[in-house]
Amino acid sequence: MLSAVCRCQCKMCSAPGSGHCGTGPSCGAPRRRRAAGRPDARGVGEALRLLKAGSGSHSPSVADVERAIPGLVEIDACFLSNPYATDEVMHRLGRVSSQTLERMVSHYPSQGAAIAEVLAPTVGVRPDRLLLANGASEAIQALLARAPGPLVIPLPTFSAYYEFATGPVVALQLRPQDDFRLDFDALDALVDRHPRATVVIINPNNPDGGPVDHGALVDFVRGAASRVHQVIVDESFGAFASEQRPRSLAPLVEELPHLVVVNSLSKSHGIPGLRLGYAVMSPQRARLLRARSLWNLNAFGEWFCGIMADPGYQRAYEQARRRYVREARHLFDGLAELPSVHVYPTAANFALLELDRPAHEVAAALLAHHGIYVRDCADKLGLQGDRYLRVAARRDAENRRILAAFADVLSEPVRRPLTVAA
Amino acid sequence: MLSAVCRCQCKMCSAPGSGHCGTGPSCGAPRRRRAAGRPDARGVGEALRLLKAGSGSHSPSVADVERAIPGLVEIDACFLSNPYATDEVMHRLGRVSSQTLERMVSHYPSQGAAIAEVLAPTVGVRPDRLLLANGASEAIQALLARAPGPLVIPLPTFSAYYEFATGPVVALQLRPQDDFRLDFDALDALVDRHPRATVVIINPNNPDGGPVDHGALVDFVRGAASRVHQVIVDESFGAFASEQRPRSLAPLVEELPHLVVVNSLSKSHGIPGLRLGYAVMSPQRARLLRARSLWNLNAFGEWFCGIMADPGYQRAYEQARRRYVREARHLFDGLAELPSVHVYPTAANFALLELDRPAHEVAAALLAHHGIYVRDCADKLGLQGDRYLRVAARRDAENRRILAAFADVLSEPVRRPLTVAA
Repeated sequence: MLSAVCRCQCKMCSAPGSGHCGTGPSCGAPRRRRAAGRPDARGVGEALRLLKAGSGSHSPSVADVERAIPGLVEIDACFLSNPYATDEVMHRLGRVSSQTLERMVSHYPSQGAAIAEVLAPTVGVRPDRLLLANGASEAIQALLARAPGPLVIPLPTFSAYYEFATGPVVALQLRPQDDFRLDFDALDALVDRHPRATVVIINPNNPDGGPVDHGALVDFVRGAASRVHQVIVDESFGAFASEQRPRSLAPLVEELPHLVVVNSLSKSHGIPGLRLGYAVMSPQRARLLRARSLWNLNAFGEWFCGIMADPGYQRAYEQARRRYVREARHLFDGLAELPSVHVYPTAANFALLELDRPAHEVAAALLAHHGIYVRDCADKLGLQGDRYLRVAARRDAENRRILAAFADVLSEPVRRPLTVAA
Repeated sequence: MLSAVCRCQCKMCSAPGSGHCGTGPSCGAPRRRRAAGRPDARGVGEALRLLKAGSGSHSPSVADVERAIPGLVEIDACFLSNPYATDEVMHRLGRVSSQTLERMVSHYPSQGAAIAEVLAPTVGVRPDRLLLANGASEAIQALLARAPGPLVIPLPTFSAYYEFATGPVVALQLRPQDDFRLDFDALDALVDRHPRATVVIINPNNPDGGPVDHGALVDFVRGAASRVHQVIVDESFGAFASEQRPRSLAPLVEELPHLVVVNSLSKSHGIPGLRLGYAVMSPQRARLLRARSLWNLNAFGEWFCGIMADPGYQRAYEQARRRYVREARHLFDGLAELPSVHVYPTAANFALLELDRPAHEVAAALLAHHGIYVRDCADKLGLQGDRYLRVAARRDAENRRILAAFADVLSEPVRRPLTVAA
């Protein structure tokens, strides 16, 4: 894989997992950035530690990092969205007339129920089952705010779920030796022991990217019907599972009113800045939750719901999705070939890496030397030890830089303090 | 006032409250729109009624009206924001590079606490007291969601407050014969009778625009300290009270931790589409509420917080604010001169009109014949009868059209069904 960034084709550069020859300009050995005026890996590590301390259980945003260490981030491999889909959105946003833009900014957006009418055919559900949200996180918070029973949730997982829980949290620990695979028998036993629970399943799961078997999931949701308050299936990363059309549980909601399907559009459509997500649920639940918010979508979110209903955009998006899925697989295959890295099986647009050294040192070195920002998972509940990094796929050229940067940083001997070469 | 839109200066046109001569092109008599292919006032009235039925206690958005009756709205005198401030925002939004715009759309915004650091100096409070919200309505919902006692609130007022209430609502009815003035003695007696209440005071109040005496308000808040859970003072329309700098209670929060000051930036800065508001409160309350939301601001809201901190924008905004306040007063003075209209005293950017005929007929005729969308207040709790309209000030030229359209529609005899002149 490393030879992908080389044109020298020498033996050293073409051997998988090896270093580079560095003998001339045709060698693709990644060049470390000059340290002039910039903090070294240790300084960057300390800045990241401080930022993290102020960001709770989420990674500091790129804007936060920019404010603390300006000009450092070149590739954001921390956040989890499809850049090719963003291109399609930006292309259309650029064509919005200044008159329309002014109308969008200067007027109140429509209420969620009205916007649901626009988006429902695209999602393939009835509008009264579709709750639009200011990002999936708003829907998650609303679903958990008044849930009567405990929250049953596999760990590790997306922290917002257990943070927004208002009652006790019952965790099902997923094990690295099982590739963090969900054990439905164990989950079912927890549902038996904890009546009226809210069960959360993220498919594919975050931060490991592991897929959940569709048939087993459907069986579990059906079987839990009379025993749970609700089963939330979060499909925010479902678009990245394969090039085939994503398989959603949303149509099942009509038959199973205790099922709620959550989806973030931030990841699949590359629009985290617009804050747009949705949840499919029974009309009764949707009515209750709608009554608790007002003008919760912004004008750009409303505009994008219109775009999603456009067949031209749908075709372009589908192409962007497939291309991204292909290239992401390529990145993860490349990472898996690196020595001193174990990559867990992933059906998402990111991979969980287990390293042979402290993850925060590798994260700091990637940022200091290569401008690459990755997610240090040290704070993730359910991931033991300081050896896990989550790496998101970006554009193909960026993926190559990510790969080369990892190869460079991991070529340092373990335990030697990482410093910038003078 | 009617003569303001006329150049003919004839006796008929210059007499206050009279009709127009209509004798030539120099007469400013408003021309009714041709009805070709468009619904008449009765049809528009029916469409508005249906839209209203689906919009709860809020007016249908312009986008909703556009979907139902395309091409009808020319002037939105229903919603309540400063168009000159919007100009300043659009001017700056137009200068955002496509690269920055892509970064805004494609990345997660910062968390509220980080954005509060940027905005706090402009608001003049400490960042840990500043809760940024996805529109003031999000802050209102959060403040009321877990309030332990009843909600004590003057009526009529902004419906979101009593709709988001989770406990009993105790209303203090304001009376039209007192110009809807707040009776602090009566409010204080309610606070005595209802311990641990959340008291809400909107200053100026919506929908009447009546100002609350600053000294009496401060005395009330101080005096209520040990008896209430919280006093929420909503200053969303405070920027329009006069050309002088708005007088806010926000600095008092440091001394009085039971006080919460809410502000919508939608109205004062003309940006309802961006969804941005804030609340100033004790650091303890702010911490609690922050824990219940995640990435609740969108990238355009975050961008605008940066703009607000720019001295160049601050100067331009202040000019826009003063200009708008002057012109709004001019509109309200003109409306007050019309026969068959009573305009209540207002310190806001809108006026409450009491008519001599059903408000929904006037609203439908204004929209059908003149493309002007106003707020029919028939559904407002605490306003008895179907005689109230709320009219927002727009740009000066639009205000003149609003004034002329009212004069035209109200020149019809009372009780005669309104139809389009063939």
